[in-house]
Amino acid sequence: MSESIQDYMTNIGQQARIASRTLASLSSNEKNQALNAILIALQQQQNQIIAANNTDMENGRNKQLDSALLDRLEFTPARFESMLTGLKDVIALTDPIGVITDLAYRPSGIQLGKMRVPLGVVGMIYESRPNVTLEAASLALKSGNAIILRGGSEALLSNQAIAKAIQDGLKTAGVPEHAIQVIETADRTAVGCLITMTDYVDVIVPRGGKSLIERITAEARIPVIKHLDGNCHVFVEREADLDKAVRISLNAKTHRYGVCNAMETLLVDAPVAEQFLPKIADLYREKQVELRGCAETLRILGDDVIAATEDDWYTEYLGPILAIKIVDGLASAIDHINHYGSHHTDAIVTENYSKARKFLALVDSSSVMINASTRFADGFEYGLGAEIGISTDKIHARGPVGLEGLTSQKWIVLGDGQIRQ
Amino acid sequence: MSESIQDYMTNIGQQARIASRTLASLSSNEKNQALNAILIALQQQQNQIIAANNTDMENGRNKQLDSALLDRLEFTPARFESMLTGLKDVIALTDPIGVITDLAYRPSGIQLGKMRVPLGVVGMIYESRPNVTLEAASLALKSGNAIILRGGSEALLSNQAIAKAIQDGLKTAGVPEHAIQVIETADRTAVGCLITMTDYVDVIVPRGGKSLIERITAEARIPVIKHLDGNCHVFVEREADLDKAVRISLNAKTHRYGVCNAMETLLVDAPVAEQFLPKIADLYREKQVELRGCAETLRILGDDVIAATEDDWYTEYLGPILAIKIVDGLASAIDHINHYGSHHTDAIVTENYSKARKFLALVDSSSVMINASTRFADGFEYGLGAEIGISTDKIHARGPVGLEGLTSQKWIVLGDGQIRQ
Repeated sequence: MSESIQDYMTNIGQQARIASRTLASLSSNEKNQALNAILIALQQQQNQIIAANNTDMENGRNKQLDSALLDRLEFTPARFESMLTGLKDVIALTDPIGVITDLAYRPSGIQLGKMRVPLGVVGMIYESRPNVTLEAASLALKSGNAIILRGGSEALLSNQAIAKAIQDGLKTAGVPEHAIQVIETADRTAVGCLITMTDYVDVIVPRGGKSLIERITAEARIPVIKHLDGNCHVFVEREADLDKAVRISLNAKTHRYGVCNAMETLLVDAPVAEQFLPKIADLYREKQVELRGCAETLRILGDDVIAATEDDWYTEYLGPILAIKIVDGLASAIDHINHYGSHHTDAIVTENYSKARKFLALVDSSSVMINASTRFADGFEYGLGAEIGISTDKIHARGPVGLEGLTSQKWIVLGDGQIRQ
Repeated sequence: MSESIQDYMTNIGQQARIASRTLASLSSNEKNQALNAILIALQQQQNQIIAANNTDMENGRNKQLDSALLDRLEFTPARFESMLTGLKDVIALTDPIGVITDLAYRPSGIQLGKMRVPLGVVGMIYESRPNVTLEAASLALKSGNAIILRGGSEALLSNQAIAKAIQDGLKTAGVPEHAIQVIETADRTAVGCLITMTDYVDVIVPRGGKSLIERITAEARIPVIKHLDGNCHVFVEREADLDKAVRISLNAKTHRYGVCNAMETLLVDAPVAEQFLPKIADLYREKQVELRGCAETLRILGDDVIAATEDDWYTEYLGPILAIKIVDGLASAIDHINHYGSHHTDAIVTENYSKARKFLALVDSSSVMINASTRFADGFEYGLGAEIGISTDKIHARGPVGLEGLTSQKWIVLGDGQIRQ
């Protein structure tokens, strides 16, 4: 069995590589026409897609999948519509491919520049949400990449139905069908193949829970654009405008709980702790946020605060829980963030110019903010149009990753017969 | 033993990580002062370094190391001087760290930009040339990174002597000594540790033969900026200016043989083969370049040309050997290059605008050239000042990699109390 999966995946990889050559040569118009054809096919096949999703849901209920997973799996009409809106947004994005920058003459007489080009073949591995199938496929097509999609087994029928519409759209537009391929087996060996086919796949983008990402990162032989955890901090510095501090601390924690850019630990500078903490704690209590504090926080806020352990400083709660620590000055705050944080998004609230500047330079995170809520760390807020994901890596793509994350730049040299002396 | 090596390496990694925090905070002046102090220490300790190198050479001869390796190992006074010149060049480079770009307001009122920052800790693995110790150390320091150096065992004393001078320079300048660390054991387990310490090392840069690079790539759990082979092509298109074609084909093959940007296969468009090949073949014969051709090439050039096999199209000769293939038109040439090439550097010679443009867009190599010699693919020719290496990857850094290859960009957000709506 495993051998036939290997053959099956090798074939998919080879087909993707061949298709990627054609995709790299398509004009923006040709790519947008294909995306439009896919949009029309999806609209026409909406009923079949919803029906396939209903069957997935029924199978899921029979298998007693947990309700959060079933919720992510479900295709309501509103979600279907929102998926199509996402596709229209991708069509409206500027094509990054072929953009030439920094074209300038060198002393030798050659003219040197950089051209943005597709990476080639993207491998996308994701869990239950079937809308990711279209989102990933459209981003790959827009950026001139072939893509191989591996969704969750619980969404197989939904994904196949979406893939069918995508294939019909590609066919109408005359784009190679292997530009977008869906792995049709639930065998987990297929993932192992996908993430090690160095000849056929250029980058892996996983989307899902931490255990999925960790497994893929550990086993991949191909670069992975990955998002691990978002253990984000707000540091209320002693020279903060405390009104801003209250507003930002409240928003960063309670605007949404289950998101990676929510604050998980609040750091408060010792001299303002007595004044600031009671105010913000009342607001958190109103929202029923569980507070876990250091000893000094407990002294100030009283008995309903739970004593935080060392583990709390490392934890991404993704829920209505907040760790609070009182620190002594900027350097301690930066040390805490760089040591316990996940290098995702961290903010300082201060009116002091030099301290703001130092925080900006020294906090080693993909987004570093002054007097703004960590919740802004997001592809749409950053104006990237669409978001491949938020990368917690430093290499290639960092923070919110847009279309450019699926591209690379090559050097181009325009000469007139120049040779090296 | 292996366990104690593990502890030894973990300790080095932790020290490097701690030092990297300080390095990230140094100003350009502070870094340049440290580099200058290293320069002075090297000048003062020249005799000790040359003496250590003499011992390495003597040990190498006793171990009957091959002469090419001994040649690379040897520190002549000229090479020592050239190493110091390289250091002066690095001091003169513009500091990439802290550069903020694209700072612009978003509709929410936040001001969003990107700041260039160090990667953190670089692991450098290289073979015999002891000058790489200084080159890598100075590039890392200039870009605010800590570095862990692992040179070849045959150069251990030379590397330790250079490291001693570097340490003295760092001490004079008040920069943490663990900014630059040399692995002092010849145990190969140390390399295995270095390339898997994901907590302490951010990027691995290997320099050396293909087998070293392949081994490191296969085993590393950390991103690798790697250079594999350079199987470069020149395609003489039917509308080429044949004078330029002769000049470029000769230069690309014979300017230097043992370099990665030398041409290894010459592709000639069928309609001009009869006219072009005899001319260029005479020049190659003068330089005693061995020619290996396709059947059609043999027919045109005669019996002193060896029949090329399929393997020849894949081969980086790194010597006075050239494969020649006659192809039918632009598309065939592009297919050949993308299939057999190593995505390093490829050039077309043509006067046709549309074909030049197509070649530029569709050849999937780190440098793509029109009417210029492949030999230009080089950090110094590209104006990067210093070269970390030439990357054959598409992710993070592609083609000649300068200081920026050791950096990353983080997002910065400047606000005035903004919260997410």
